[in-house]
Amino acid sequence: MAKFAVFGTGTVGQCLAGRLSELGNTVIVGTRNVEDTMARTEKDMYGNPPYAEWLKNHPGILTGTFKEAASKCDIIVNCTMGHASMDALQSAEATDLKGKILIDIANPLDFSGGFPPSLLICNTDSLGERIQQAFPELQVVKTLNTMNAWLMVNPALVPGNHTVFVSGNDAGAKGTVKGILSSFGWETYNILDLGDITTARGTEMLLPVWVRLYGALQTPMFNFHINIAGKNQP
Amino acid sequence: MAKFAVFGTGTVGQCLAGRLSELGNTVIVGTRNVEDTMARTEKDMYGNPPYAEWLKNHPGILTGTFKEAASKCDIIVNCTMGHASMDALQSAEATDLKGKILIDIANPLDFSGGFPPSLLICNTDSLGERIQQAFPELQVVKTLNTMNAWLMVNPALVPGNHTVFVSGNDAGAKGTVKGILSSFGWETYNILDLGDITTARGTEMLLPVWVRLYGALQTPMFNFHINIAGKNQP
Repeated sequence: MAKFAVFGTGTVGQCLAGRLSELGNTVIVGTRNVEDTMARTEKDMYGNPPYAEWLKNHPGILTGTFKEAASKCDIIVNCTMGHASMDALQSAEATDLKGKILIDIANPLDFSGGFPPSLLICNTDSLGERIQQAFPELQVVKTLNTMNAWLMVNPALVPGNHTVFVSGNDAGAKGTVKGILSSFGWETYNILDLGDITTARGTEMLLPVWVRLYGALQTPMFNFHINIAGKNQP
Repeated sequence: MAKFAVFGTGTVGQCLAGRLSELGNTVIVGTRNVEDTMARTEKDMYGNPPYAEWLKNHPGILTGTFKEAASKCDIIVNCTMGHASMDALQSAEATDLKGKILIDIANPLDFSGGFPPSLLICNTDSLGERIQQAFPELQVVKTLNTMNAWLMVNPALVPGNHTVFVSGNDAGAKGTVKGILSSFGWETYNILDLGDITTARGTEMLLPVWVRLYGALQTPMFNFHINIAGKNQP
């Protein structure tokens, strides 16, 4: 069991924090301003309850500023909106981040042109790479950003084999993150290590087809599976 | 059976032309300069034989300029390199293209920075859209661009279910293309219609993860499958 700081109080943060806590980990959710977050009463754009209401059903989970959460954890999970991720991390001190793993789930979605969103960063760069470059004291592992939040922590919601991608520069950090994915229910043969953090370009660039699939299928409960000749999963 | 113009003499063009001909269609392969194409003797970067050598084993297939091929066909298949697609189409007259379906398989890959390639166009635009906009007399259907060329025309090379995407503005043209995909061996439940031609942004943006998967898996013989909750394929 480990101490996790989950950055972000939206659905992704709630799913990750809830599941990590349920598995016996210590979880502190980080937010910009705790008072503002607790005062919010409106549902989000998908009809999910506000953070304070969700928290009532998760009494073991702590809430703090980004800095407080980072300083008290072993592993940070970035569930902020992609455009806000750099600012959230900058509110922590370098000493709060040093040597820690950052699991980066954020996507640099740009909703300024309406739906479907485009990407703020792509093609020759990615959010994962920008975070790794700006915070060299962190070991950034990009994963889980290519699917619905509920599915991230409960892969059995989509039957059969489907894939979770992993990108990062540090083999040890990726090993730790793969262990966390296993604890969520991901089978080893469905965890696909793409290589270093530059491969996050590829997985972040899956979002444009993800949003179109959501439109075509009328459900977010689907996932990519990489079907490989000569490699049959059980 | 129909008359196809296959634009492009590389592996993708050879795979498509060979399979369409094998299925009983009339096929004319279009190229910039027939004499130059026939004179080439070097293998391509993947070790595939030059066009003239391949053609010896496909005696029923004709070769002509892009304009000749376009003028004699019902359906054009764009298998050129993405950066050369617009020029290839511009060498045909509007009257050669009018009312015809263009099956667009090209990807706007940019190898100028080495491997892995980035994209020349992406995010808020796509090659499929640019072609449709520049040639409104064509009915552009983007498909098959998310996988290896051999797999396009023989989906059984990867066992189990996996997905071929279809994007285009005209339902009738998409219906015709889905029929051609079926003739290649694609099951109806594995053909996923994403919507209009703007959804080609999504499928072209699958290429960056495709090239990274090729690197990680050390084989091009894999494909994306969209695994959907509550929708089990046979």
